[in-house]
Amino acid sequence: MFGSEGTLGVITELVVRVHGIPEHVAAARVSFPDIRAAADTAIAIVQSGIPIARCELLDGPQMDAVNRYSGLDEPAVPSLFLEFHGSEAGVQEQVAQVELIATEFGGGAFRWAVQAEDRSRLWKARHDVYFSLLAYRPGCRSLTTDVCVPLSRLADCIEQTVADIATNLPFPAPIVGHVADGNFHCGLLLMPDDPEERRLTTEFSSRLVARALEMGGTCTGEHGVGLGKQRYLTQQFGPEAVALMRTLKTAFDPRGIMNPGKLLPDPL
Amino acid sequence: MFGSEGTLGVITELVVRVHGIPEHVAAARVSFPDIRAAADTAIAIVQSGIPIARCELLDGPQMDAVNRYSGLDEPAVPSLFLEFHGSEAGVQEQVAQVELIATEFGGGAFRWAVQAEDRSRLWKARHDVYFSLLAYRPGCRSLTTDVCVPLSRLADCIEQTVADIATNLPFPAPIVGHVADGNFHCGLLLMPDDPEERRLTTEFSSRLVARALEMGGTCTGEHGVGLGKQRYLTQQFGPEAVALMRTLKTAFDPRGIMNPGKLLPDPL
Repeated sequence: MFGSEGTLGVITELVVRVHGIPEHVAAARVSFPDIRAAADTAIAIVQSGIPIARCELLDGPQMDAVNRYSGLDEPAVPSLFLEFHGSEAGVQEQVAQVELIATEFGGGAFRWAVQAEDRSRLWKARHDVYFSLLAYRPGCRSLTTDVCVPLSRLADCIEQTVADIATNLPFPAPIVGHVADGNFHCGLLLMPDDPEERRLTTEFSSRLVARALEMGGTCTGEHGVGLGKQRYLTQQFGPEAVALMRTLKTAFDPRGIMNPGKLLPDPL
Repeated sequence: MFGSEGTLGVITELVVRVHGIPEHVAAARVSFPDIRAAADTAIAIVQSGIPIARCELLDGPQMDAVNRYSGLDEPAVPSLFLEFHGSEAGVQEQVAQVELIATEFGGGAFRWAVQAEDRSRLWKARHDVYFSLLAYRPGCRSLTTDVCVPLSRLADCIEQTVADIATNLPFPAPIVGHVADGNFHCGLLLMPDDPEERRLTTEFSSRLVARALEMGGTCTGEHGVGLGKQRYLTQQFGPEAVALMRTLKTAFDPRGIMNPGKLLPDPL
Protein backbone atom coordinates (compact mmCIF):
# COMPACT_ATOMS: atom_id res chain seq x y z
CA MET A 1 0.00 0.00 0.00
CA PHE A 2 2.99 2.34 0.58
CA GLY A 3 3.18 4.87 -2.20
CA SER A 4 -0.01 3.68 -3.91
CA GLU A 5 -1.83 6.93 -2.98
CA GLY A 6 -5.18 5.20 -2.46
CA THR A 7 -5.19 3.64 -5.94
CA LEU A 8 -5.02 0.04 -4.70
CA GLY A 9 -7.40 -0.02 -1.75
CA VAL A 10 -8.77 1.65 1.34
CA ILE A 11 -7.13 1.27 4.75
CA THR A 12 -9.82 0.14 7.20
CA GLU A 13 -7.68 -0.77 10.20
CA LEU A 14 -4.24 0.29 11.40
CA VAL A 15 -1.90 -1.05 14.05
CA VAL A 16 0.24 1.79 15.39
CA ARG A 17 3.76 1.24 16.72
CA VAL A 18 4.36 3.84 19.41
CA HIS A 19 7.76 5.22 20.36
CA GLY A 20 8.63 6.59 23.78
CA ILE A 21 9.12 10.30 24.31
CA PRO A 22 12.91 10.76 24.46
CA GLU A 23 14.46 11.29 27.87
CA HIS A 24 16.40 14.33 26.65
CA VAL A 25 16.01 16.67 23.66
CA ALA A 26 18.23 19.48 22.38
CA ALA A 27 17.73 21.69 19.33
CA ALA A 28 20.10 23.94 17.41
CA ARG A 29 20.25 26.41 14.55
CA VAL A 30 23.59 26.76 12.71
CA SER A 31 24.46 29.35 10.03
CA PHE A 32 26.66 28.62 6.99
CA PRO A 33 28.59 30.72 4.47
CA ASP A 34 26.92 28.99 1.50
CA ILE A 35 24.32 26.34 0.68
CA ARG A 36 26.89 23.65 -0.17
CA ALA A 37 28.50 23.96 3.26
CA ALA A 38 25.11 23.47 4.91
CA ALA A 39 24.25 20.46 2.72
CA ASP A 40 27.71 18.93 3.16
CA THR A 41 27.34 19.25 6.94
CA ALA A 42 24.01 17.41 6.83
CA ILE A 43 25.55 14.66 4.70
CA ALA A 44 28.54 14.31 7.04
CA ILE A 45 26.26 14.12 10.10
CA VAL A 46 24.26 11.25 8.61
CA GLN A 47 27.29 9.46 7.18
CA SER A 48 28.97 9.62 10.61
CA GLY A 49 26.12 7.49 11.96
CA ILE A 50 24.89 10.21 14.32
CA PRO A 51 21.23 9.35 14.98
CA ILE A 52 19.99 12.87 14.26
CA ALA A 53 16.26 13.21 14.99
CA ARG A 54 15.54 16.24 12.76
CA CYS A 55 17.75 17.97 10.22
CA GLU A 56 16.18 20.78 8.18
CA LEU A 57 17.91 23.12 5.75
CA LEU A 58 16.59 26.62 4.99
CA ASP A 59 18.41 28.67 2.35
CA GLY A 60 19.11 32.44 2.55
CA PRO A 61 15.89 33.61 0.83
CA GLN A 62 13.84 31.26 3.03
CA MET A 63 15.48 32.63 6.19
CA ASP A 64 14.78 36.17 4.90
CA ALA A 65 11.13 35.21 4.31
CA VAL A 66 10.58 33.84 7.83
CA ASN A 67 12.42 36.79 9.40
CA ARG A 68 9.95 39.15 7.70
CA TYR A 69 6.83 37.06 8.27
CA SER A 70 7.51 36.02 11.88
CA GLY A 71 9.40 39.11 13.06
CA LEU A 72 12.57 37.10 13.70
CA ASP A 73 16.13 38.34 13.51
CA GLU A 74 17.99 35.22 12.37
CA PRO A 75 20.98 35.50 10.02
CA ALA A 76 19.50 35.46 6.48
CA VAL A 77 21.99 32.84 5.26
CA PRO A 78 21.78 29.09 4.62
CA SER A 79 20.97 27.45 7.97
CA LEU A 80 20.48 24.02 9.46
CA PHE A 81 17.88 23.38 12.15
CA LEU A 82 18.78 20.27 14.13
CA GLU A 83 17.23 18.20 16.89
CA PHE A 84 18.86 15.51 19.01
CA HIS A 85 17.00 12.83 20.98
CA GLY A 86 18.37 10.36 23.51
CA SER A 87 19.68 10.08 27.02
CA GLU A 88 21.34 13.19 28.45
CA ALA A 89 24.83 11.72 27.90
CA GLY A 90 23.90 10.51 24.42
CA VAL A 91 22.58 13.92 23.38
CA GLN A 92 25.69 15.67 24.72
CA GLU A 93 27.85 13.31 22.69
CA GLN A 94 25.85 13.93 19.50
CA VAL A 95 25.97 17.70 20.07
CA ALA A 96 29.76 17.67 20.47
CA GLN A 97 30.22 15.63 17.27
CA VAL A 98 27.87 17.86 15.26
CA GLU A 99 29.57 21.05 16.45
CA LEU A 100 32.89 19.66 15.24
CA ILE A 101 31.46 18.69 11.84
CA ALA A 102 29.61 21.97 11.29
CA THR A 103 32.61 24.05 12.29
CA GLU A 104 34.76 22.12 9.83
CA PHE A 105 32.41 23.20 7.02
CA GLY A 106 32.52 26.85 8.16
CA GLY A 107 29.31 26.73 10.19
CA GLY A 108 28.90 29.04 13.16
CA ALA A 109 26.61 31.36 15.11
CA PHE A 110 25.23 28.27 16.87
CA ARG A 111 22.00 28.86 18.73
CA TRP A 112 21.03 26.11 21.20
CA ALA A 113 17.80 25.33 23.01
CA VAL A 114 16.99 22.60 25.53
CA GLN A 115 13.82 23.69 27.37
CA ALA A 116 10.58 22.94 25.49
CA GLU A 117 9.60 26.64 25.23
CA ASP A 118 13.03 27.62 23.90
CA ARG A 119 12.96 24.81 21.37
CA SER A 120 9.53 25.93 20.15
CA ARG A 121 10.87 29.47 19.64
CA LEU A 122 13.91 28.13 17.80
CA TRP A 123 11.78 25.95 15.50
CA LYS A 124 9.35 28.81 14.78
CA ALA A 125 11.36 29.82 11.70
CA ARG A 126 10.89 26.34 10.25
CA HIS A 127 7.22 26.00 11.18
CA ASP A 128 6.24 29.32 9.60
CA VAL A 129 7.80 28.46 6.23
CA TYR A 130 4.64 27.99 4.19
CA PHE A 131 2.85 31.16 5.21
CA SER A 132 6.10 33.14 5.05
CA LEU A 133 6.34 32.14 1.38
CA LEU A 134 2.85 33.40 0.53
CA ALA A 135 3.62 36.69 2.29
CA TYR A 136 7.06 37.02 0.64
CA ARG A 137 5.49 37.92 -2.71
CA PRO A 138 1.95 39.19 -2.09
CA GLY A 139 -0.61 37.63 -4.42
CA CYS A 140 1.63 34.70 -5.38
CA ARG A 141 0.90 31.01 -5.23
CA SER A 142 3.62 28.59 -4.07
CA LEU A 143 4.20 25.62 -6.34
CA THR A 144 6.30 23.31 -4.20
CA THR A 145 8.73 20.88 -5.84
CA ASP A 146 9.74 17.68 -4.02
CA VAL A 147 12.72 15.81 -5.45
CA CYS A 148 14.82 13.40 -3.41
CA VAL A 149 18.32 12.16 -4.31
CA PRO A 150 20.83 9.75 -2.74
CA LEU A 151 22.41 11.58 0.19
CA SER A 152 25.84 11.54 -1.45
CA ARG A 153 24.43 13.67 -4.34
CA LEU A 154 22.37 16.07 -2.21
CA ALA A 155 24.87 18.96 -2.13
CA ASP A 156 25.38 18.73 -5.93
CA CYS A 157 21.66 18.69 -6.58
CA ILE A 158 20.89 21.65 -4.31
CA GLU A 159 23.82 23.72 -5.61
CA GLN A 160 22.84 23.17 -9.27
CA THR A 161 19.23 23.96 -8.42
CA VAL A 162 20.16 27.24 -6.71
CA ALA A 163 22.13 28.21 -9.85
CA ASP A 164 19.14 27.26 -12.03
CA ILE A 165 16.84 29.47 -9.92
CA ALA A 166 19.25 32.43 -10.13
CA THR A 167 19.64 32.09 -13.90
CA ASN A 168 16.15 31.22 -15.04
CA LEU A 169 13.48 32.41 -12.60
CA PRO A 170 12.40 36.07 -12.34
CA PHE A 171 10.62 35.36 -9.01
CA PRO A 172 11.84 33.99 -5.66
CA ALA A 173 12.05 30.23 -5.05
CA PRO A 174 13.22 29.67 -1.46
CA ILE A 175 14.47 26.20 -0.51
CA VAL A 176 13.57 24.02 2.48
CA GLY A 177 15.11 20.56 2.78
CA HIS A 178 14.56 17.50 4.95
CA VAL A 179 18.18 16.98 4.15
CA ALA A 180 18.93 13.89 6.24
CA ASP A 181 16.64 12.06 3.78
CA GLY A 182 18.09 13.66 0.64
CA ASN A 183 14.77 15.47 0.11
CA PHE A 184 14.27 19.19 -0.54
CA HIS A 185 11.58 21.56 -1.76
CA CYS A 186 11.71 24.78 -3.80
CA GLY A 187 8.75 27.08 -3.17
CA LEU A 188 8.23 28.59 -6.63
CA LEU A 189 6.42 31.86 -5.88
CA LEU A 190 4.65 32.47 -9.18
CA MET A 191 1.68 34.66 -10.00
CA PRO A 192 -0.89 32.01 -10.91
CA ASP A 193 -2.53 34.08 -13.67
CA ASP A 194 0.71 34.93 -15.46
CA PRO A 195 1.19 32.46 -18.37
CA GLU A 196 4.90 33.29 -18.74
CA GLU A 197 5.57 32.55 -15.04
CA ARG A 198 3.57 29.32 -15.33
CA ARG A 199 5.64 28.30 -18.35
CA LEU A 200 8.91 29.05 -16.51
CA THR A 201 7.67 27.09 -13.49
CA THR A 202 6.81 24.02 -15.57
CA GLU A 203 10.14 24.11 -17.37
CA PHE A 204 12.05 24.55 -14.10
CA SER A 205 10.19 21.62 -12.53
CA SER A 206 11.03 19.39 -15.50
CA ARG A 207 14.72 20.34 -15.32
CA LEU A 208 14.76 19.71 -11.56
CA VAL A 209 13.19 16.25 -11.95
CA ALA A 210 15.59 15.38 -14.80
CA ARG A 211 18.51 16.47 -12.58
CA ALA A 212 17.29 14.35 -9.66
CA LEU A 213 16.67 11.28 -11.85
CA GLU A 214 20.07 11.61 -13.47
CA MET A 215 21.54 11.48 -9.93
CA GLY A 216 19.61 8.30 -9.08
CA GLY A 217 16.79 10.15 -7.31
CA THR A 218 13.02 10.40 -7.57
CA CYS A 219 10.49 12.99 -8.76
CA THR A 220 8.73 12.96 -5.40
CA GLY A 221 10.11 12.40 -1.92
CA GLU A 222 6.96 12.72 0.18
CA HIS A 223 4.27 14.78 -1.61
CA GLY A 224 3.36 12.01 -4.03
CA VAL A 225 2.57 11.73 -7.73
CA GLY A 226 -1.15 12.56 -7.69
CA LEU A 227 -2.00 14.44 -10.88
CA GLY A 228 0.91 16.90 -11.07
CA LYS A 229 3.70 14.35 -11.49
CA GLN A 230 2.02 11.72 -13.65
CA ARG A 231 4.09 12.93 -16.60
CA TYR A 232 7.32 12.10 -14.74
CA LEU A 233 6.39 8.53 -13.79
CA THR A 234 7.32 6.93 -17.13
CA GLN A 235 10.49 9.06 -17.23
CA GLN A 236 11.51 7.69 -13.83
CA PHE A 237 10.53 4.02 -14.12
CA GLY A 238 10.30 3.31 -17.86
CA PRO A 239 7.28 2.17 -19.87
CA GLU A 240 7.50 -1.54 -18.89
CA ALA A 241 7.42 -0.76 -15.17
CA VAL A 242 4.48 1.63 -15.59
CA ALA A 243 2.64 -1.04 -17.62
CA LEU A 244 3.22 -3.51 -14.76
CA MET A 245 1.90 -0.91 -12.27
CA ARG A 246 -1.23 -0.68 -14.43
CA THR A 247 -1.62 -4.48 -14.37
CA LEU A 248 -1.25 -4.50 -10.58
CA LYS A 249 -3.78 -1.69 -10.26
CA THR A 250 -6.26 -3.84 -12.23
CA ALA A 251 -5.49 -6.89 -10.05
CA PHE A 252 -6.25 -4.96 -6.84
CA ASP A 253 -9.05 -2.84 -8.23
CA PRO A 254 -10.72 -4.53 -11.22
CA ARG A 255 -13.62 -2.05 -11.18
CA GLY A 256 -11.34 1.01 -11.17
CA ILE A 257 -12.97 2.68 -8.16
CA MET A 258 -9.86 3.36 -6.03
CA ASN A 259 -8.77 7.01 -6.46
CA PRO A 260 -9.32 6.77 -10.22
CA GLY A 261 -7.23 8.94 -12.54
CA LYS A 262 -4.45 9.52 -9.99
CA LEU A 263 -0.81 8.41 -9.95
CA LEU A 264 -0.77 6.31 -13.16
CA PRO A 265 -0.59 8.33 -16.38
CA ASP A 266 -3.22 7.55 -19.02
CA PRO A 267 -1.98 4.86 -21.42
CA LEU A 268 -0.61 6.52 -24.60
CA MET B 1 9.52 -8.37 -3.57
CA PHE B 2 9.92 -8.74 0.22
CA GLY B 3 8.43 -12.03 1.31
CA SER B 4 7.59 -13.20 -2.22
CA GLU B 5 10.25 -15.96 -2.04
CA GLY B 6 11.17 -15.64 -5.71
CA THR B 7 7.59 -16.17 -6.90
CA LEU B 8 7.21 -12.68 -8.42
CA GLY B 9 10.53 -12.08 -10.16
CA VAL B 10 14.29 -12.33 -10.13
CA ILE B 11 16.53 -9.70 -8.53
CA THR B 12 19.09 -8.63 -11.13
CA GLU B 13 20.60 -5.59 -9.41
CA LEU B 14 20.87 -4.50 -5.79
CA VAL B 15 21.82 -1.22 -4.14
CA VAL B 16 23.35 -1.92 -0.75
CA ARG B 17 23.09 0.52 2.16
CA VAL B 18 26.21 0.11 4.26
CA HIS B 19 26.39 0.83 7.98
CA GLY B 20 29.57 1.82 9.79
CA ILE B 21 31.30 -0.60 12.13
CA PRO B 22 30.31 0.57 15.63
CA GLU B 23 32.92 2.46 17.62
CA HIS B 24 32.38 0.25 20.65
CA VAL B 25 30.82 -3.21 21.15
CA ALA B 26 30.03 -5.16 24.32
CA ALA B 27 28.43 -8.58 24.66
CA ALA B 28 26.84 -10.36 27.60
CA ARG B 29 25.28 -13.65 28.65
CA VAL B 30 22.69 -13.55 31.47
CA SER B 31 21.09 -16.56 33.21
CA PHE B 32 17.46 -16.65 34.38
CA PRO B 33 15.44 -18.78 36.81
CA ASP B 34 12.80 -19.57 34.16
CA ILE B 35 11.95 -18.95 30.51
CA ARG B 36 9.31 -16.30 31.24
CA ALA B 37 11.85 -14.18 33.17
CA ALA B 38 14.23 -14.31 30.20
CA ALA B 39 11.49 -13.41 27.70
CA ASP B 40 10.10 -10.66 29.95
CA THR B 41 13.59 -9.16 30.22
CA ALA B 42 13.93 -9.08 26.42
CA ILE B 43 10.51 -7.43 26.12
CA ALA B 44 11.38 -4.81 28.77
CA ILE B 45 14.71 -4.03 27.07
CA VAL B 46 13.01 -3.34 23.75
CA GLN B 47 10.08 -1.49 25.28
CA SER B 48 12.50 0.76 27.20
CA GLY B 49 13.83 1.97 23.85
CA ILE B 50 17.32 0.57 24.43
CA PRO B 51 18.81 0.14 20.93
CA ILE B 52 19.93 -3.45 21.56
CA ALA B 53 21.97 -4.78 18.62
CA ARG B 54 21.46 -8.52 19.27
CA CYS B 55 19.17 -10.27 21.75
CA GLU B 56 19.03 -14.07 21.59
CA LEU B 57 17.23 -16.42 23.97
CA LEU B 58 18.38 -20.02 24.52
CA ASP B 59 16.28 -22.22 26.81
CA GLY B 60 17.66 -24.74 29.34
CA PRO B 61 17.71 -27.78 26.99
CA GLN B 62 19.41 -25.67 24.29
CA MET B 63 22.10 -24.52 26.75
CA ASP B 64 22.58 -28.16 27.78
CA ALA B 65 22.94 -29.15 24.11
CA VAL B 66 25.65 -26.54 23.36
CA ASN B 67 27.48 -27.32 26.61
CA ARG B 68 27.76 -30.96 25.50
CA TYR B 69 28.51 -30.26 21.84
CA SER B 70 30.99 -27.39 22.30
CA GLY B 71 32.52 -28.46 25.62
CA LEU B 72 31.25 -25.35 27.39
CA ASP B 73 30.34 -25.02 31.02
CA GLU B 74 27.54 -22.44 30.90
CA PRO B 75 24.62 -22.66 33.35
CA ALA B 76 22.07 -24.97 31.64
CA VAL B 77 19.18 -22.60 32.32
CA PRO B 78 17.25 -20.10 30.17
CA SER B 79 19.77 -17.47 29.04
CA LEU B 80 19.90 -14.27 27.06
CA PHE B 81 22.86 -13.43 24.81
CA LEU B 82 23.06 -9.68 24.24
CA GLU B 83 25.17 -7.31 22.19
CA PHE B 84 25.41 -3.53 22.47
CA HIS B 85 26.72 -1.19 19.76
CA GLY B 86 27.50 2.52 19.98
CA SER B 87 29.96 5.00 21.38
CA GLU B 88 31.79 3.94 24.52
CA ALA B 89 29.59 6.16 26.72
CA GLY B 90 26.46 5.01 24.90
CA VAL B 91 27.29 1.32 25.36
CA GLN B 92 28.06 1.83 29.06
CA GLU B 93 24.69 3.49 29.48
CA GLN B 94 22.86 0.64 27.72
CA VAL B 95 24.74 -1.94 29.77
CA ALA B 96 23.78 -0.24 33.06
CA GLN B 97 20.12 -0.08 32.05
CA VAL B 98 20.03 -3.72 30.93
CA GLU B 99 21.69 -4.94 34.13
CA LEU B 100 18.99 -3.16 36.13
CA ILE B 101 16.19 -4.67 34.03
CA ALA B 102 17.61 -8.21 34.03
CA THR B 103 18.24 -8.15 37.78
CA GLU B 104 14.66 -7.03 38.36
CA PHE B 105 13.45 -10.20 36.56
CA GLY B 106 15.78 -12.41 38.63
CA GLY B 107 18.57 -12.55 36.05
CA GLY B 108 22.15 -13.00 37.22
CA ALA B 109 25.49 -14.72 36.65
CA PHE B 110 26.29 -12.00 34.10
CA ARG B 111 29.22 -12.79 31.86
CA TRP B 112 30.61 -9.81 29.93
CA ALA B 113 32.96 -9.55 26.97
CA VAL B 114 34.35 -6.48 25.19
CA GLN B 115 37.42 -7.64 23.23
CA ALA B 116 36.64 -9.27 19.87
CA GLU B 117 38.16 -12.65 20.87
CA ASP B 118 36.23 -12.73 24.16
CA ARG B 119 33.01 -11.85 22.37
CA SER B 120 33.55 -14.67 19.87
CA ARG B 121 34.01 -17.13 22.75
CA LEU B 122 30.88 -15.82 24.47
CA TRP B 123 28.79 -16.11 21.28
CA LYS B 124 30.09 -19.64 20.55
CA ALA B 125 27.14 -21.18 22.44
CA ARG B 126 24.74 -19.39 20.10
CA HIS B 127 26.64 -20.11 16.91
CA ASP B 128 26.91 -23.85 17.57
CA VAL B 129 23.15 -24.25 18.08
CA TYR B 130 22.30 -26.15 14.90
CA PHE B 131 24.99 -28.80 15.10
CA SER B 132 24.50 -29.13 18.86
CA LEU B 133 20.88 -30.09 18.13
CA LEU B 134 21.81 -32.85 15.68
CA ALA B 135 24.32 -34.21 18.22
CA TYR B 136 21.87 -33.96 21.13
CA ARG B 137 19.86 -36.93 19.86
CA PRO B 138 22.08 -39.00 17.55
CA GLY B 139 20.33 -39.97 14.31
CA CYS B 140 17.64 -37.30 14.64
CA ARG B 141 16.61 -34.65 12.16
CA SER B 142 15.76 -31.15 13.40
CA LEU B 143 12.47 -29.75 12.15
CA THR B 144 12.71 -26.08 13.01
CA THR B 145 9.55 -24.07 13.68
CA ASP B 146 9.54 -20.30 13.13
CA VAL B 147 6.58 -18.40 14.57
CA CYS B 148 6.70 -14.70 15.38
CA VAL B 149 4.27 -12.82 17.65
CA PRO B 150 3.83 -9.21 18.76
CA LEU B 151 6.51 -8.55 21.36
CA SER B 152 3.93 -8.00 24.10
CA ARG B 153 2.74 -11.63 23.66
CA LEU B 154 6.18 -13.23 23.33
CA ALA B 155 6.51 -14.45 26.94
CA ASP B 156 2.99 -15.97 26.84
CA CYS B 157 3.68 -17.72 23.56
CA ILE B 158 7.03 -19.17 24.66
CA GLU B 159 5.71 -20.27 28.05
CA GLN B 160 2.69 -22.04 26.54
CA THR B 161 4.94 -23.66 23.92
CA VAL B 162 7.35 -24.98 26.58
CA ALA B 163 4.36 -26.53 28.39
CA ASP B 164 3.13 -28.04 25.10
CA ILE B 165 6.57 -29.61 24.50
CA ALA B 166 6.71 -31.05 28.02
CA THR B 167 3.20 -32.52 27.77
CA ASN B 168 3.08 -33.78 24.20
CA LEU B 169 6.54 -34.52 22.80
CA PRO B 170 8.54 -37.64 23.75
CA PHE B 171 11.71 -36.12 22.25
CA PRO B 172 13.66 -32.91 22.99
CA ALA B 173 12.67 -29.61 21.33
CA PRO B 174 15.15 -26.92 22.46
CA ILE B 175 14.22 -23.28 21.89
CA VAL B 176 16.26 -20.45 20.35
CA GLY B 177 14.66 -17.04 19.96
CA HIS B 178 15.54 -13.79 18.20
CA VAL B 179 13.43 -12.37 20.93
CA ALA B 180 13.77 -8.65 20.26
CA ASP B 181 11.74 -9.36 17.10
CA GLY B 182 9.16 -11.61 18.78
CA ASN B 183 10.54 -14.55 16.79
CA PHE B 184 11.56 -17.96 18.17
CA HIS B 185 12.35 -21.45 16.92
CA CYS B 186 11.77 -24.90 18.42
CA GLY B 187 14.20 -27.53 17.12
CA LEU B 188 11.99 -30.62 17.04
CA LEU B 189 14.51 -33.48 17.23
CA LEU B 190 12.49 -36.29 15.66
CA MET B 191 13.63 -39.54 14.13
CA PRO B 192 12.72 -38.97 10.50
CA ASP B 193 11.70 -42.59 9.84
CA ASP B 194 9.37 -42.88 12.84
CA PRO B 195 5.78 -42.24 11.66
CA GLU B 196 4.53 -41.60 15.21
CA GLU B 197 7.19 -38.93 15.83
CA ARG B 198 6.38 -37.35 12.47
CA ARG B 199 2.69 -37.26 13.36
CA LEU B 200 3.45 -35.66 16.76
CA THR B 201 5.72 -33.12 15.04
CA THR B 202 3.05 -32.12 12.51
CA GLU B 203 0.40 -31.80 15.21
CA PHE B 204 2.74 -29.76 17.43
CA SER B 205 3.58 -27.43 14.53
CA SER B 206 -0.10 -26.86 13.81
CA ARG B 207 -0.84 -26.07 17.46
CA LEU B 208 2.14 -23.68 17.60
CA VAL B 209 0.99 -21.82 14.47
CA ALA B 210 -2.59 -21.63 15.75
CA ARG B 211 -1.27 -20.23 19.07
CA ALA B 212 0.86 -17.60 17.28
CA LEU B 213 -1.99 -16.57 14.95
CA GLU B 214 -4.41 -16.30 17.85
CA MET B 215 -1.91 -13.86 19.45
CA GLY B 216 -1.76 -11.73 16.29
CA GLY B 217 1.43 -13.36 15.00
CA THR B 218 2.58 -15.16 11.86
CA CYS B 219 3.42 -18.76 10.88
CA THR B 220 6.89 -17.73 9.74
CA GLY B 221 9.19 -15.00 11.02
CA GLU B 222 12.18 -15.45 8.73
CA HIS B 223 12.37 -18.98 7.26
CA GLY B 224 9.53 -18.41 4.80
CA VAL B 225 6.51 -20.34 3.58
CA GLY B 226 8.12 -22.42 0.82
CA LEU B 227 6.38 -25.79 0.66
CA GLY B 228 6.18 -26.65 4.37
CA LYS B 229 3.90 -23.80 5.44
CA GLN B 230 1.59 -23.50 2.43
CA ARG B 231 -1.17 -25.12 4.47
CA TYR B 232 -0.99 -22.28 7.03
CA LEU B 233 -1.24 -19.41 4.55
CA THR B 234 -5.02 -19.47 4.17
CA GLN B 235 -5.38 -19.94 7.93
CA GLN B 236 -3.32 -16.80 8.51
CA PHE B 237 -4.65 -14.48 5.80
CA GLY B 238 -8.05 -15.89 4.81
CA PRO B 239 -9.19 -17.18 1.41
CA GLU B 240 -9.84 -13.72 -0.14
CA ALA B 241 -6.31 -12.50 0.61
CA VAL B 242 -4.77 -15.70 -0.76
CA ALA B 243 -6.92 -15.34 -3.89
CA LEU B 244 -5.59 -11.77 -4.29
CA MET B 245 -2.01 -13.06 -3.84
CA ARG B 246 -2.71 -15.52 -6.67
CA THR B 247 -4.00 -12.68 -8.89
CA LEU B 248 -0.86 -10.64 -8.14
CA LYS B 249 1.35 -13.64 -8.87
CA THR B 250 -0.31 -13.90 -12.29
CA ALA B 251 0.13 -10.15 -12.90
CA PHE B 252 3.88 -10.34 -12.22
CA ASP B 253 4.44 -13.76 -13.72
CA PRO B 254 1.80 -14.58 -16.36
CA ARG B 255 3.76 -17.61 -17.59
CA GLY B 256 4.17 -19.10 -14.11
CA ILE B 257 7.95 -19.52 -14.32
CA MET B 258 8.99 -17.79 -11.07
CA ASN B 259 9.65 -20.42 -8.36
CA PRO B 260 6.50 -22.32 -9.38
CA GLY B 261 4.64 -24.37 -6.79
CA LYS B 262 6.10 -22.49 -3.81
CA LEU B 263 4.47 -20.18 -1.24
CA LEU B 264 0.90 -20.13 -2.63
CA PRO B 265 -1.16 -23.23 -1.83
CA ASP B 266 -2.84 -24.97 -4.78
CA PRO B 267 -6.36 -23.61 -5.35
CA LEU B 268 -8.93 -25.93 -3.73
